[in-house]
Amino acid sequence: MNNRIFNFSAGPAVLPVEVLEQAQSSLLDFDGTGIGIMEHSHRGAAFCSVLDQTIADCRAIADIPGDYQILFMQGGASSQFFTVPMNFLSAGETADYYVTGSWSKKAVAQANRYGTPHIACTSEDRNFCYVPQEAEFSPQPKYVHYTSNNTIFGTQFHSEPTVPDQSHLICDASSDIFSRSLDIRKHGMIYAGAQKNLGPSGVTLLIVHNDLVEAGSRDIPEMLQYRTFSKNDSCYNTPPTFGIFMMGLVFKWILKQGGLKAIEEMNEEKAGTLYSHLDNGNLFRATADENSRSLMNVTFVTGDDELDKKFIAEAKQAGFDGLKGHRSVGGMRASIYNAFPAEGINELVKFMQNFESKNS
Amino acid sequence: MNNRIFNFSAGPAVLPVEVLEQAQSSLLDFDGTGIGIMEHSHRGAAFCSVLDQTIADCRAIADIPGDYQILFMQGGASSQFFTVPMNFLSAGETADYYVTGSWSKKAVAQANRYGTPHIACTSEDRNFCYVPQEAEFSPQPKYVHYTSNNTIFGTQFHSEPTVPDQSHLICDASSDIFSRSLDIRKHGMIYAGAQKNLGPSGVTLLIVHNDLVEAGSRDIPEMLQYRTFSKNDSCYNTPPTFGIFMMGLVFKWILKQGGLKAIEEMNEEKAGTLYSHLDNGNLFRATADENSRSLMNVTFVTGDDELDKKFIAEAKQAGFDGLKGHRSVGGMRASIYNAFPAEGINELVKFMQNFESKNS
Repeated sequence: MNNRIFNFSAGPAVLPVEVLEQAQSSLLDFDGTGIGIMEHSHRGAAFCSVLDQTIADCRAIADIPGDYQILFMQGGASSQFFTVPMNFLSAGETADYYVTGSWSKKAVAQANRYGTPHIACTSEDRNFCYVPQEAEFSPQPKYVHYTSNNTIFGTQFHSEPTVPDQSHLICDASSDIFSRSLDIRKHGMIYAGAQKNLGPSGVTLLIVHNDLVEAGSRDIPEMLQYRTFSKNDSCYNTPPTFGIFMMGLVFKWILKQGGLKAIEEMNEEKAGTLYSHLDNGNLFRATADENSRSLMNVTFVTGDDELDKKFIAEAKQAGFDGLKGHRSVGGMRASIYNAFPAEGINELVKFMQNFESKNS
Repeated sequence: MNNRIFNFSAGPAVLPVEVLEQAQSSLLDFDGTGIGIMEHSHRGAAFCSVLDQTIADCRAIADIPGDYQILFMQGGASSQFFTVPMNFLSAGETADYYVTGSWSKKAVAQANRYGTPHIACTSEDRNFCYVPQEAEFSPQPKYVHYTSNNTIFGTQFHSEPTVPDQSHLICDASSDIFSRSLDIRKHGMIYAGAQKNLGPSGVTLLIVHNDLVEAGSRDIPEMLQYRTFSKNDSCYNTPPTFGIFMMGLVFKWILKQGGLKAIEEMNEEKAGTLYSHLDNGNLFRATADENSRSLMNVTFVTGDDELDKKFIAEAKQAGFDGLKGHRSVGGMRASIYNAFPAEGINELVKFMQNFESKNS
């Protein structure tokens, strides 16, 4: 364990050590079955029990009502970008999009294939460094789509956006799912690729209201219909069993931490420490507007590209990995998801102070 | 290790013990990086090196020519059933299908969404217990599709089917990929879900000729275009990194066994032992025609449903798991993929002999 470094990767990202240790002990013999977890049939008792428990724990974490389905799909959020409009949008129909970053833009591009996406608001005017507070909706949007946290730009919605009556709110929560309290009832659908807060890449969690499950098109491949996954307990074809197993372990870890309220407090404290240093230091500054800052991805710069590079290189040498910002923003990005240890933030701040004293 | 039992699961299926042990040691600290394999960014040096090596080893295993791409997708063979015709088939165009089991039928159903599938031959007349030797092609099929091994019915093509000139042969090789010598040049495309011979479920291997990569529709979501995966080294979005890593370990294991020739000999010997017992015993008989038998899935019955149940239950008690046949065939099925140990076959035959002497 001692040789683990601080991994600020934006995703796939750091996982809890105890979860990884549990996974280790399940690879050759899961739960005394004499068969490793990856080798169990998805139709067998061992995996079915894992699946049931994972769903039960997911419901417990976010108090998910019985009229919402919990589904597991593949292909990441990028596949939902087209699957959502393919299911819910037809030629001549409109869906509204909050455009707050690169991923929202990609989602809009896919909606264009099936109907008319309407951009309810955008923060592209200032390179997505904020989350717009106002939106102009189209008259009758089939749904309203938003990205709750913008991994690249370090911004986050601090509350669910408003939605016109009769419309469904659909959220891409890939980079902040289960990082704070969550009001499921405000959403028609929440989807999230696992690789930031939930587990390894290759499995997508969906929380979908029954009405949307039923409203989806029947004129598309079964593998792209939500009802197929709903009717078959996500086992119409072979699901990514190991990814679901890992997600189940992470769910248990979240519950053990005290659930979303406790996780939220920890995340506020972790991000707070880092933002506080950025606001009070004399070299680095945060790039996102204060009222739009993300608790998951903290983006910052020195204002000098060469100095940024020097910082990233020296940080890597010192055991802080993955701090290079996305090319759209430049500078640095500290991705500090649920599983990122508070100790790593404190150590990073110390390292920044040291760097500042040498380079100011 | 001693507590591992014999796992005859049809998929997800048994993996080599040494591969699972290598995975175990990579979960918390991969290759001295201080970061677990699942936690590495798909854009970072560690994973990129895994990806490159996995592709190189894949090429080495099947001597894959440079004008074929090696791609990694998600969603299993079931997603390829619609992705293939969505890419290559338009209204009014025909594609030919060898219908040799449930999976072929599902593939045909998806092709119906985009064009006109033509059933070149079918073995449904005798519940798919054989692979037809003759086919009647349509005048100009865009492609010819076959399922090289039929997991459920225990049959397998013993050579690649013929294809009309100018057409591309497309193979669903999910349940026998890399189990024997393979002539890539005879195919336009081979695809395989990983969970039988290659690794955990959740990653699909594709070997696709450049011509087909380029021939695919541009009027479909990027995530469903083969060229997207080709252009972006399978990293347009976050790939299933752990699944690819596991596949890489399995590829190294295959090479270590001596490659496909050696693997084929082992598989012939394993299946031969079991079929020989079925042909010479006095209680069990194989369900597939002799000239169509699968080396991967050996299906057999006693002819008495109650006795089948008794055998399966007693076998399970004795440490032989997953022997229940698919409901479409009934009886028993021993799935004995590459990683299934020869010892398990010998032990099963002994157990069968014992059962026979008590129940004949």
